[in-house]
Amino acid sequence: MRAVITLTTDFGLADPFAGVMKGVILNLAPKAQIIDITHQIEPQNIRQAALTLESAHSYFPKNTVHLVVVDPGVGSERRPIAVKTRTATFLGPDNGVLTSVMAPSSRVYELTKTKYFLESPSSTFHGRDVFAPAAAWVAVGTPLSRMGRKIDDPHILKFPQPAVHENTITGEIISIDRFGNLISNITSELLDPSQTEPLTLLIGRHRIRGLKAHYSQLKPGEVGCLINSWGRLEVFCREGNAKNKLKCRVGTSLTIKK
Amino acid sequence: MRAVITLTTDFGLADPFAGVMKGVILNLAPKAQIIDITHQIEPQNIRQAALTLESAHSYFPKNTVHLVVVDPGVGSERRPIAVKTRTATFLGPDNGVLTSVMAPSSRVYELTKTKYFLESPSSTFHGRDVFAPAAAWVAVGTPLSRMGRKIDDPHILKFPQPAVHENTITGEIISIDRFGNLISNITSELLDPSQTEPLTLLIGRHRIRGLKAHYSQLKPGEVGCLINSWGRLEVFCREGNAKNKLKCRVGTSLTIKK
Amino acid sequence: MRAVITLTTDFGLADPFAGVMKGVILNLAPKAQIIDITHQIEPQNIRQAALTLESAHSYFPKNTVHLVVVDPGVGSERRPIAVKTRTATFLGPDNGVLTSVMAPSSRVYELTKTKYFLESPSSTFHGRDVFAPAAAWVAVGTPLSRMGRKIDDPHILKFPQPAVHENTITGEIISIDRFGNLISNITSELLDPSQTEPLTLLIGRHRIRGLKAHYSQLKPGEVGCLINSWGRLEVFCREGNAKNKLKCRVGTSLTIKK
Repeated sequence: MRAVITLTTDFGLADPFAGVMKGVILNLAPKAQIIDITHQIEPQNIRQAALTLESAHSYFPKNTVHLVVVDPGVGSERRPIAVKTRTATFLGPDNGVLTSVMAPSSRVYELTKTKYFLESPSSTFHGRDVFAPAAAWVAVGTPLSRMGRKIDDPHILKFPQPAVHENTITGEIISIDRFGNLISNITSELLDPSQTEPLTLLIGRHRIRGLKAHYSQLKPGEVGCLINSWGRLEVFCREGNAKNKLKCRVGTSLTIKK
Repeated sequence: MRAVITLTTDFGLADPFAGVMKGVILNLAPKAQIIDITHQIEPQNIRQAALTLESAHSYFPKNTVHLVVVDPGVGSERRPIAVKTRTATFLGPDNGVLTSVMAPSSRVYELTKTKYFLESPSSTFHGRDVFAPAAAWVAVGTPLSRMGRKIDDPHILKFPQPAVHENTITGEIISIDRFGNLISNITSELLDPSQTEPLTLLIGRHRIRGLKAHYSQLKPGEVGCLINSWGRLEVFCREGNAKNKLKCRVGTSLTIKK
Repeated sequence: MRAVITLTTDFGLADPFAGVMKGVILNLAPKAQIIDITHQIEPQNIRQAALTLESAHSYFPKNTVHLVVVDPGVGSERRPIAVKTRTATFLGPDNGVLTSVMAPSSRVYELTKTKYFLESPSSTFHGRDVFAPAAAWVAVGTPLSRMGRKIDDPHILKFPQPAVHENTITGEIISIDRFGNLISNITSELLDPSQTEPLTLLIGRHRIRGLKAHYSQLKPGEVGCLINSWGRLEVFCREGNAKNKLKCRVGTSLTIKK
């Protein structure tokens, strides 16, 4: 059995940080298959890391070990934690990056046993000295109960929730992808499938009418919206860049009129 | 046998798209060795993806599975296809990205059997829902004949061909690499090896005389040309950036005088 | 035994250079585990590559094969070399990129036997044609003595050394990471651990007093210094970017007053 370990960090790819973490992992778990989810989380953007993990983790094999290191508090009293769910194990700093996997059935541990870290951990690079070795120990089968103690007060992020009224839903853009697509916090479950009238979406000065099924239903340069592959309402510009065209950013609000 | 699967996409590395495709593959083909060719094709630049694949694929082991996802028509009627050649299998949307491997001996299939896709594929991310699982099924030995039906009308891109005259060859820049080297569609076979006079190359207002054998034959900052490692005529600036120095872009024409 | 091969290059990730090197390696060493340290060394910055290797290599398993290709002299008379140390093997052009592993106990070889290269190597891409295949042959157990001849005159880079005086140490910034942290050539061994007075650091017009233990000891936006996880004196801005705030670059000098 080759364990899969995924990495999600804000370390970028120019410095050797991510490569060195992989070296540390391979010392302890030589058969691990290490997969990058991304190393391009904006520096210290805990929310973006939490959303990325939420989107990605369920597509990996059972028992995958997911490591998230976006860690502005490295070296302080913030705890290193691990979360065991029914399908996988997650490691990261206790700053909210693991919020999306904190289900009632999840067991949460503070990693306290320093024998599962590198010797003399630095105070500025726990990705290398604490989390990479701990992830490798998990990957080779070490139970979390041996690596630390159960806790019941992990740090939980609060994400902005859409406001649902009788005739409107108001949400906001929570992420923007490489193509400039604007991804909102309005999920498909909030939309009434029995509604026969096409919805109207207002964003900035723009008014978009009706949900499309896929990008190619518009002409190049036109702006529309659809439910995307993660189940979220998304504003797009066919073969263009909706972010630039609509001058939006993370946090821009949008309203659906039924 | 560990199958090799390569990925060439325009998904970038900031979003979790490429990582999630790898998760899907490892669910179905846990021993696959997944290699990134690049995820930084310009958004929706089918030509650039086709050229990248053409350069890269022959350096991989026999029976490698090459997956190319640059897919502006995702969700529309465009077909997902697979091409079996003597040495490898290639998967991608039927939009021309696989043009370079459409040899007469290649067999081309439309992937029609949805049991080889994820359940309920989205209409915006076939990289994850259609192509990654299909590539994994190929990697574990599923014959293409079981995954779809043979077709004989795949979409073929036409690339600009150099114009060869008695005393001149006129071509154009088809790609520019990280170093600013300008790579043309003039290949070494078009140049007469018996010619004793050094050639003259005209590009914009610049005149370059003679082919070099390697970069270090010029002084830092000087501009020259050579036959590069892919067999193409390339204009370079030693320890500098020819793209910036000559103000060129993809499509800029160049002429050789014999 | 799966050999680990690391790659450190200036090839970037947009072009297929790194992917193709991996294809060549997997042809010859199908079980190799290939790990990217980085492909984003500044084009032709030999010093940056040498420093990156110095930081990274010791975190990898014993017998790892480290390949460094930053090679402005590709195709010229510069030699391809390999260095065998007590723990690992290193390959690269003989231009100083391997300086940090040239210990007295290291054995250095010029790679001369072309049977360990691809046939008819190009003069512009030895990463693919010379170094990738040679690294794969090393990874499968080929002794360096069979691949070339011992040499005792490898090219060694001289790095700027800090000037240590009775009451001051003057060094310089040698690298800047993704977070804008300024990393100096002043190492922890140069600082007197018995000193009870906090040190004063001068950089540009800024004066910083005292070493911190970790980033979170400052308020967001404040500038401080600490000994970082590689044992070097580093100037940082908490949850900000010291490079931008202090307008520094590689080469900027800094002085410690005891």
